[in-house]
Amino acid sequence: MRATDIILKKRGFFVTDSQGNRNLEQVKNLSKEEIEFMIKGCVDGSIPEYQMSAWLMAIFFNGMTFEETGYLTSAMLHSGDTINLQNRQKEGLHGPFVDKHSTGGVGDKISLPLAPIVAACGLQVPMMSGRALGHTGGTLDKLESINGYKTNLTPQAFASLIAKTGYAMTGQTKEIVPADRILYALRDVTGTVESIPLITSSILSKKIAEGSDALVFDVKYGSGAFMKSVEDAKLLATFLVNTAKAMGKKASALITDMNTPLGNKIGNFLEIEETIECLQNKGPVDVMEETYALAVQMLLLGDIAKTEEEAMQLCVEAVKSGKALQRFLENVEDQGGNSKELMGQIGVRRSKYSTKLIAKEDGYIYIDAYKTGMAGVTLGVGRNKTTDSVCGDAGIILEKHSGDKVCKGDVIMQIFGKDEQCLKPAVNLLQDAVNYSKDKPELNKLIYMKI
Amino acid sequence: MRATDIILKKRGFFVTDSQGNRNLEQVKNLSKEEIEFMIKGCVDGSIPEYQMSAWLMAIFFNGMTFEETGYLTSAMLHSGDTINLQNRQKEGLHGPFVDKHSTGGVGDKISLPLAPIVAACGLQVPMMSGRALGHTGGTLDKLESINGYKTNLTPQAFASLIAKTGYAMTGQTKEIVPADRILYALRDVTGTVESIPLITSSILSKKIAEGSDALVFDVKYGSGAFMKSVEDAKLLATFLVNTAKAMGKKASALITDMNTPLGNKIGNFLEIEETIECLQNKGPVDVMEETYALAVQMLLLGDIAKTEEEAMQLCVEAVKSGKALQRFLENVEDQGGNSKELMGQIGVRRSKYSTKLIAKEDGYIYIDAYKTGMAGVTLGVGRNKTTDSVCGDAGIILEKHSGDKVCKGDVIMQIFGKDEQCLKPAVNLLQDAVNYSKDKPELNKLIYMKI
Repeated sequence: MRATDIILKKRGFFVTDSQGNRNLEQVKNLSKEEIEFMIKGCVDGSIPEYQMSAWLMAIFFNGMTFEETGYLTSAMLHSGDTINLQNRQKEGLHGPFVDKHSTGGVGDKISLPLAPIVAACGLQVPMMSGRALGHTGGTLDKLESINGYKTNLTPQAFASLIAKTGYAMTGQTKEIVPADRILYALRDVTGTVESIPLITSSILSKKIAEGSDALVFDVKYGSGAFMKSVEDAKLLATFLVNTAKAMGKKASALITDMNTPLGNKIGNFLEIEETIECLQNKGPVDVMEETYALAVQMLLLGDIAKTEEEAMQLCVEAVKSGKALQRFLENVEDQGGNSKELMGQIGVRRSKYSTKLIAKEDGYIYIDAYKTGMAGVTLGVGRNKTTDSVCGDAGIILEKHSGDKVCKGDVIMQIFGKDEQCLKPAVNLLQDAVNYSKDKPELNKLIYMKI
Repeated sequence: MRATDIILKKRGFFVTDSQGNRNLEQVKNLSKEEIEFMIKGCVDGSIPEYQMSAWLMAIFFNGMTFEETGYLTSAMLHSGDTINLQNRQKEGLHGPFVDKHSTGGVGDKISLPLAPIVAACGLQVPMMSGRALGHTGGTLDKLESINGYKTNLTPQAFASLIAKTGYAMTGQTKEIVPADRILYALRDVTGTVESIPLITSSILSKKIAEGSDALVFDVKYGSGAFMKSVEDAKLLATFLVNTAKAMGKKASALITDMNTPLGNKIGNFLEIEETIECLQNKGPVDVMEETYALAVQMLLLGDIAKTEEEAMQLCVEAVKSGKALQRFLENVEDQGGNSKELMGQIGVRRSKYSTKLIAKEDGYIYIDAYKTGMAGVTLGVGRNKTTDSVCGDAGIILEKHSGDKVCKGDVIMQIFGKDEQCLKPAVNLLQDAVNYSKDKPELNKLIYMKI
């Protein structure tokens, strides 16, 4: 088997017809063995990066079938260690293990209230999360704003905490799906990020490696999302669900709006605060709606509930009874934090570098998610490069939301920075993120559809 | 400027419409500066090969305009030394300098009789040639089968021999278009060879670097050619001619048939023999026709003749008078050979390892160029890898040609090998190269069209 032949098979040949039109012909689907050959060669270094990047570009142009995407996901999954929770019944792990994956957004703290809610309903949730990059936040960064909270659990600790509290939160280790780290770094610099099958295999291989039996996807669309259009989000959701099913996992997906930030608070510790508010049943309407909708899907896939209504009732009860908050605080203690200290910081722990965004005119406002997210990076919430550090206390509190009417001089946002210098450029970015109109803007439904 | 952005600009983005169709959008033409940035970075090593190969694959899929192809050719041309013949009037160089380029074939020795014919008509021809690879032969390998003949001329020797004899034959040095050697090696292993703009810039940059003012292209189509269909050959010819013109060079192209081998003799020294037969006005009809047709184009572009008829008359006269043969033998002496020794070897210098291909049945035959060329590689005429050596005396003499009627037992070919062992596999390949039919096969016109 030769890498060049596999590239050519995926690439095809242009043939010119008698009218001078060029048609791509002979593009063939790759076999399981061919895809495994490429991934194995990529990880062991026998296939050079210049062949991998040409192959990735051919995949960008010609796509992959669900079947090929499944082979790719499987080859990536087996490039490293996997966490096998199924074999550990004696340790109190019973499964089914259900996780959620979000494609990322601005103010998207859903994982944080979601995990304790479904754990309180009886699910076991192995949650492996990521870090902030660009305008999108990261669950691990938010958790690490809690003093003492550790996100680098060993597989053993991860399993035993899931058994104990119903869920645990960890990061991806170097040993999990090494192929994804190599491919992702290469795709980032070779213009091959925006490929549905490559995105699908990257997400799925990690989620399956963490030991999940079922997966719920929150595929966001809009300015603050990876997928800008609802059609692209639908396509990605379809690939994720169908490929996961082809690999023997239960799966469903919600398509959700990410044109405007989610909730009232954006930031690392600020989103921990909002999580506690949600678990105290006083969270923002949009965060509660999305959290419950995803929790319902998880409970259905996890066979905890038979109908959406039954699942919803369980979730609401978990919150109202205080059981979900209890799980959350138990997890904080499990992973090295101090729940009393944390509760004492709510509403008072703030960066000393702060300012306000004031309405420039009268009118209805619309707050753009992407621009708000980029202002967050400037404030220290997120990072431009994976090696940058983030600030726990930086962030934004939205006093007004998309669709609200404001008068000139009203406070739209409270702004907290990592230092004094970052405030001014962030305010400029945020002014630009707010659009004013005379008429009330049409707001999208938060949850567009289920797949 | 960032390589990743230039890759994305050439690549574009897929956007899914409401029917779920994916459309490629935002593909933009690259500027002169962007193309120069990529080529400069490729040669100085600042842009890694994995970015170059992704870019090349994006070019394979999305193509390039004539303008972009011109920028690419120019950037490649200026990546190394160029031979400036124009500034050397005092040395007897007057120009215009006209060269021919063939896309390669089986039995294609046209450069060898062509150069002395047009030199005898008064043209100055700086001819930079290549080596055999795969099924196609190489002019340099053929010349080096002449004892003592050297093809690695210094630029100074190259120029002074052109001034003296009207033409000289040399190979590409490492200093000429280094970008092409790097890109070609990369394209070969990344599935990005078959791209019209990339092929165009590779051919043109070398031809312009050798100092030509005008170029005639012999773009072959068929089984033994790089372009399999006449439509693809037309497209390549159009790119070559238009890009050359955009770069201020005169240019024309002939589209010629390469479904069956050219001439009677295939091999290194055997093609030197056939060249001398042509220059003695007793060459095969097809080789003479194609040589004259290309010579006419060169004389027109070089302002030696005003009309095709006038040009043809000059060429025929150069051969009949013996002046063209004289130039050829003078060049042999110029470049280290011994013309008397050479003439003494004609018709007698043969490999001692020989056999014959015998007709298996009665009927009309058609000899496939590609399969014959691959048999030639087995015999030692050509090479599979650039590092393989070739055998001067190996080759094939066609006793019968496509369209001839044979009887079972007739000798179709005389076969000469580098050793005893290679003969049997070569005979098997050649048996497969001969197709028998009851009816006379339709033969293509040798010269399909001029562009």
